[in-house]
Order: sequence, then structure tokens, then C-alpha cells
Amino acid sequence: MELITNLQEIVGIDSVSASPMELYCYSSDASQIRGTPDYVVRPQDSEQVSKILKFANEHEIPVTARGAGTGLAGGAVALEGGIVLDLSGMDRILDIDINNLQVAVEPGVVHSKLNEVLKAEGFFFPPDPGSSAMCTLGGLIANNGSGMRSVKYGTTRSYVLDLEVVLADGSVIHTGSKTLKSSAGYDLTRLMVGSEGTLGVITKAILKIHPLPKARTVVLASFETPELAGEAVVKTLSEGVIPSACEILDRTTVEVLNSYDPNIAIPDAGATILFEFDGTKSSVVEEAEIVEAVCKPFASGIRVAADRKEMEEIWSARRLVGAAISRINPNKTRVYVGEDVGVPIKEIPRMLKLVQSISDEFDLPIMTYGHVGDGNLHTGMCIDMLDNEQWERLNLAADKIHKTAIMLDGTVSAEHGIGSARCEYMRLERGDALDVMILIKRALDPKGILNPGKLGV
Amino acid sequence: MELITNLQEIVGIDSVSASPMELYCYSSDASQIRGTPDYVVRPQDSEQVSKILKFANEHEIPVTARGAGTGLAGGAVALEGGIVLDLSGMDRILDIDINNLQVAVEPGVVHSKLNEVLKAEGFFFPPDPGSSAMCTLGGLIANNGSGMRSVKYGTTRSYVLDLEVVLADGSVIHTGSKTLKSSAGYDLTRLMVGSEGTLGVITKAILKIHPLPKARTVVLASFETPELAGEAVVKTLSEGVIPSACEILDRTTVEVLNSYDPNIAIPDAGATILFEFDGTKSSVVEEAEIVEAVCKPFASGIRVAADRKEMEEIWSARRLVGAAISRINPNKTRVYVGEDVGVPIKEIPRMLKLVQSISDEFDLPIMTYGHVGDGNLHTGMCIDMLDNEQWERLNLAADKIHKTAIMLDGTVSAEHGIGSARCEYMRLERGDALDVMILIKRALDPKGILNPGKLGV
Repeated sequence: MELITNLQEIVGIDSVSASPMELYCYSSDASQIRGTPDYVVRPQDSEQVSKILKFANEHEIPVTARGAGTGLAGGAVALEGGIVLDLSGMDRILDIDINNLQVAVEPGVVHSKLNEVLKAEGFFFPPDPGSSAMCTLGGLIANNGSGMRSVKYGTTRSYVLDLEVVLADGSVIHTGSKTLKSSAGYDLTRLMVGSEGTLGVITKAILKIHPLPKARTVVLASFETPELAGEAVVKTLSEGVIPSACEILDRTTVEVLNSYDPNIAIPDAGATILFEFDGTKSSVVEEAEIVEAVCKPFASGIRVAADRKEMEEIWSARRLVGAAISRINPNKTRVYVGEDVGVPIKEIPRMLKLVQSISDEFDLPIMTYGHVGDGNLHTGMCIDMLDNEQWERLNLAADKIHKTAIMLDGTVSAEHGIGSARCEYMRLERGDALDVMILIKRALDPKGILNPGKLGV
Repeated sequence: MELITNLQEIVGIDSVSASPMELYCYSSDASQIRGTPDYVVRPQDSEQVSKILKFANEHEIPVTARGAGTGLAGGAVALEGGIVLDLSGMDRILDIDINNLQVAVEPGVVHSKLNEVLKAEGFFFPPDPGSSAMCTLGGLIANNGSGMRSVKYGTTRSYVLDLEVVLADGSVIHTGSKTLKSSAGYDLTRLMVGSEGTLGVITKAILKIHPLPKARTVVLASFETPELAGEAVVKTLSEGVIPSACEILDRTTVEVLNSYDPNIAIPDAGATILFEFDGTKSSVVEEAEIVEAVCKPFASGIRVAADRKEMEEIWSARRLVGAAISRINPNKTRVYVGEDVGVPIKEIPRMLKLVQSISDEFDLPIMTYGHVGDGNLHTGMCIDMLDNEQWERLNLAADKIHKTAIMLDGTVSAEHGIGSARCEYMRLERGDALDVMILIKRALDPKGILNPGKLGV
């Protein structure tokens, strides 16, 4: 019997495909990584996932779980062929349990959909990836994604109470429970969060939710140099005011934003910080006052967003930076390589300087912006994608950015994940801890069927 | 050569002991669990720990790491003899790095000592175990301890950025980095937090710290029944005000507190909730007003603490509940068994009722108090410790309390750990996830030398 028949028996004829056209559609994510699967399988429930994994394990067929394919590191790309498990059809919100401050979801639920539903209840799920409108919660969990608000609210890791996970051999476990707090054995929940489908397939998640804040305010501060901006951020955080977002924009990014929407009119400066505060009506006013006072000695200009409309304009523009970058030169395309480093926050000014010198060295414009409150910088590079020489320079620059971040006690990925794009840096960043990762991988997936070629394991 | 000579060669003659008197001192923690080691070894640095583990692994000698011995589940007790590794001498605060919002510490640093030092800088380390004045940070991390403020600040798990860990074979790894946010491979930091010394020995930790809040306020609300108290808590949390502490005290606990310090004068009620809010001057006033309004329809009485003095009296009394319980009957002793269950927050009222019925069934007074904001209940039972029949009833009652918590989707340990005291419930609570724990244990400690007999692995 052909493999495809076995898979069809598990999920039904219409839920398995081996058509070249469809396989092509599943051969990449939002990165440049490519790999064509042999089959695309669309399970409807964890029982089907369990049967598929049991079967794949017996026949040593690679299985790569996939949500919406918005990943930036090739994490959902089937590098060694086999099965792509498309979980986007498992997209039910199973339970909204306000009294327990939690929801139960299937992995295919789109991030913004959950927050839309929760808004009606006065709640939200705090991690806020830029790809909110498309990415699935399963992918977000598998990559420990986060976004602008992690400086106050933490990353996805902090919001997962329990995962239903199908292991390589098809067995199903629960990693946690509905309890908000537990010290009862190994934290398998956090082990699965960020493991990018290499240890198991997430088929259900219980997520902690948070009441929506009643008020927000945005403060824009301009600085002559990134160093001054960095100092102001550290001083603000140590004053006991924790912003709900704390974004840095370099000069080029501000230029791009202003040309994208002239209403925004952020003043030209060496670096701009967008502080957002959320909380109660009085607390956000108070916090904006504190941050103004703290930043004053460092800043060349400070302004509080006039109203909700201006705040919304600023944030919607900020969310589009990644795309708007092509405004610099319409013939060039933003390439997501070396785009997600993180450093200890006091190293931010130094990292910004070093990125600038890398930009000069390789003669590549690099637009730098990111979540300065937690040390996460996005370094946006644009090239003409048909020009091999530019590709070469881009790869060299990205390599140097990665190594610079590690040199500063940082990470090659703060929120996008390792996938296959950043595997080569795992030894340098994690040292002998990589061997422990490999031991765990072998213990849980001895035949190596789960998302092979990822994470360096 | 005798084993003791090998150990003396590693740490020096004075840092190894096999004297029966000393071994006896190390034969228990704050629980009833007993186990005498063959040697007590006091390493001074991670290199010595590494050599000890390498040696112990070669000779298959059990090694049990120990901090201050304040654990309540036998986690630091050498059940199979061998070496107790007393890490209390590795007690240096290595770095206070305010600009990176972090500190580096050795495992033997006492919790309150760190917060004393940080206070001068305007910062604090949020987890706040009741044993703060004695417990070490290594033990707190190994047990994922927390305390009253985890409802707002989370548990120890949320504050560990990096651990230096010596593995069973003596190799040394770093589980994370100084970066506040990372998505670069398996979260070995969280795997080690709460693993109770069964996967490695923590020799250094980098911990995230938080600015001290500028203001605090305490609201005392009385309710006729625990159900009404539970409803008021859920309603408060869902109104978007997250208290920095949210403690429930049953009628007996209030009686004990009032008799301990008549100044406190908490009104007699079916259940009392202590809400604490921290933040800015205006935000705490605002939050106290919201909680008063929210609780009014449920409460029989609400009062805001008059001043700092009253707040301090209330909290210092609350911290002494565990000890003060002997006031009920001076001939009885509080036994820490079945004392740390957690349930989903909406199950709190039901759990309180069931604990009461267990108290009636076994004719044992049970004083219930705890961190209701995250579902953690401490059920304090007192017996005459020389009376075997009372012991028997106590163990039966504790067993029923544990099973009741699991039945309500809860945990047998919210913050004290499993140790050997709660091993027997691991299968019931964690199901097949226990097998994954065992796989990981075998992969990292194939000879089983690290803290054998704990956690059910």
C-alpha cells in the first residue's frame, strides 16, 4: 500500500495532498529557506495527529508541523521532505474561561482572532507579534514569539499554562494544568514552548489572559545619539515605570515612517524612542509625567501623543516598518536575514553603533528599530534580490551582526526563532548547553522524525 | 584510598565531614522526611562542584544538593546516603547590574540578604517565600518557590535569566544569557528551575530584578462565606486591577491572628481577603477604590489599612500564621504535610468547602489560608506528634486533600516542591508526562546519582 493511502485512511482523502502545485505552496515560509515536502496532511484533531505521528515514526518519515507559515527562519519548512502537518484547520477556540483567567485553543487559531473575541470580554492575550493578523497561536508558542509589549507583559512563555502535545511515537501528554502556579516536577510546558516542533506537535493550549488596560498614552522622545536614547531607557526602567512598549527607531526608520504617513511627523533625530504606558486613567498620566522628567536631561525633544487618533497613527505606522522599508528604494526588497538579535539592554547603544559600522563596511543600508526595552533589535536590510553580489554582502553583514550580538552576551534570535536560518550559531551562543539540547531531542525523538534540520539538534 | 580522602583532596580537609553528629544535622529539612548522608561536603566554587560530581558519577555515589534546608518536602534530604553538597558557603552576590536590570549570585545567598542589598538601589527580587530570612536562592530556584506576590509578579521561574549548572558528569553549562528575551533553542533555564537538584547542581544564577514600587495600600474585605470571597477575587482580577498580594484567611486563621496580636482586630467572618496594591501614589488609591466598589456587593465589611504601621502589622502577622497556628492548642504542632495545594482560581471556594469536610471527616482542625489570587492554598494541620493515631488521621486527611486538588484540575504543590513527600501523586497529577520527565532524567543523569528518590523520576 502506498504511503498516501495510509495517510488518507487517517485523515480522509481530501485532507492529504501530493500535488506538485500544492507541495510548492508549502515549500517555504516567510524566510528565504526552501524545502519541498512529499505530502501535505491536514489533521482535524489530536487523535489524527497521534495516528499520523505513530505511522510516521514507524516508517521514519519526517514530520514538520506548520501553522500559517509566517515564520522568518524556515522553522516550518520540510528540509528533508516527508510530511508537512498543516494545523491551520484546527482553529477552534475551545473555551473562554474568564473566571479562571484563561482560554483553551487549538493551535490553528489566528492570533488576532483570539484577541478580537477576548476584547468583547474585556480581556486580551498579551504577546503581540507583528504578524498578528496571520500567524497562528501554535506557531507563536512553538517559537516563543512576543512583540512590542513583552517589556511589560513578557513573552509567550509566560502565558502558557498547559499544552496538549503529541510526541514522536504518537503518545499524547499534557505538560501542565489549569492551575496558575505549580511546582510539581519538570516544567515541560516551557520546554515545549520555543522548541519549534522538534520535540512534539502542539494540539491544544491553555493560555493565561489579562484584563484589558483602561487607558493608554504614548510619549515620543527624540535624542541626538542612540547612546543618549539608551541611557534614557535604562533610567526610565529603573525609576519604577515599566512601559507597555518601548520602541527605538533609528534616523532611517523615522524617515521611512514620515514618508509613509506625513501626518506622523516624527522629528528628525539620531534616535527616537516611543514609550507607551497602559493602566488606569491616572496612572498613565502620572507615568508619562515621570518619563518626561526622566528623559528631559537626555532628550532633544519630547512630546505626548495628543489623542487616541495620533497614538493609533503612530502604532499602525510602526507596525508597517518592515514593509515600508522598501520606500528607501523601490528596487530593493527587505530580506529577513540577521533581523532578530537581542542584547542585554545596556549594550543597546553599543550594538546600534556596531550595526552602523557593519552597514558602512558592507555598504548596505541597515534600518534599525525594535523593542529596546528588552534589548531586541530588528536590523532591516534591503537588496536587489536578483543581484548575487548584493546577496553575498548581505550574508556577510548578517553573519557579523549575529556574531556581534553573541559577543555582547546576546542572542541571535530574541523572538523569531532559530529554524534552519540560524542553526550555525547555536554552538557559539549556547556552548555545551547545545549538547544537553541534543540529549533531550534524542530521548524524546530517537528516530529524529520531528522537524529535522532545525535548531542544531 | 578512602572516598573521604578523594573528597578532601577536592575541597580541603575542613570542608568534608563524616562525623555522626554533623551527618545527623544534615539528615532532614523542615519536613518530616529523614535520610542520613555518608558525607557532607562544602564546596567553594563551581570548579569544586564539577570535580565532586565527576568523581561521584564515576563511583556512582548519590549527590544531594542543599541550601539552607528550609524545604518542606524532603527535597534536600539524602534518602540513599552518599554526599550532601552544602552550597550555603557559596554565598556571594557577584554583580549588581542595575543598568541591565539583573544581578548575578551564587546559590547560597540568602533571599532576604539579596533584597536588603537591592533595596539600597531602589530595586527588589519579587519572589517572596515565607522563609525569606533563611532560605537560599539556589533552593528557591530549584523548587520554583514564590510566595504572596506571585499573583502580580509571577514565580521564581519568571526571574531567572541564566543558570550555571554542573551536570551529573561534571560538565558545566550555561542555560541562558544576560539577554532579557530569547528564542534560541530549548528553554533549559526553565527546565532546571523546579527540577530540585535531579538534573544538575546550580552554581550561579543571573536574576532579573524589578524597581521597588513607590506606594502600597492594603484593603481588608470580610465575607460571610468562602464562596462570596472567591467571587469577589475573580471579579476584582477581571476588572483589570491586579493586586500585588491577594490572601485568603479562613475563620480559624483570623482567630489565630487576632489572638497573636490584638491590635490587628480583623473582624470575625466566614472568610477574609487581604488585598495589597503596589504602584504609584495615585494608582494604589485608585485601585483600592476599584476593589472596594467591586467587593461591596459581596462583602460584609471592607476597610482600607489606615497607615503604613497598620499595613506592617497585618503583614508581619500574616507571615507568622504558620508558626502562630500552635495558639489553637499549645500541645499540638503544625505538621507540613498536604500543605501546598493549588487549584484553578474559580475552584477556590469549592476547594475550601471540601477541605472543611475533610477536616470534619477526620476530626482534625485544618486552618486554611493562602495565595487565593493564584489558587494556592496552605492547609495547616496540627496534631500531638507523639500520638500515632493522630498521625494516621493526618496522613489520611493529607492524602484526601492532595487527591481533591488533582480532581479539581489542580496541583499537589504550588510552590513548595515535590521532594519525596509528594512523589506518590506525580503519576496521578502529571499522567504520561511523568514518562517524559523520566526520559529526560535518564538522558541527563544516566547513573541516577543526582538526588535519587525525588520527584518520582
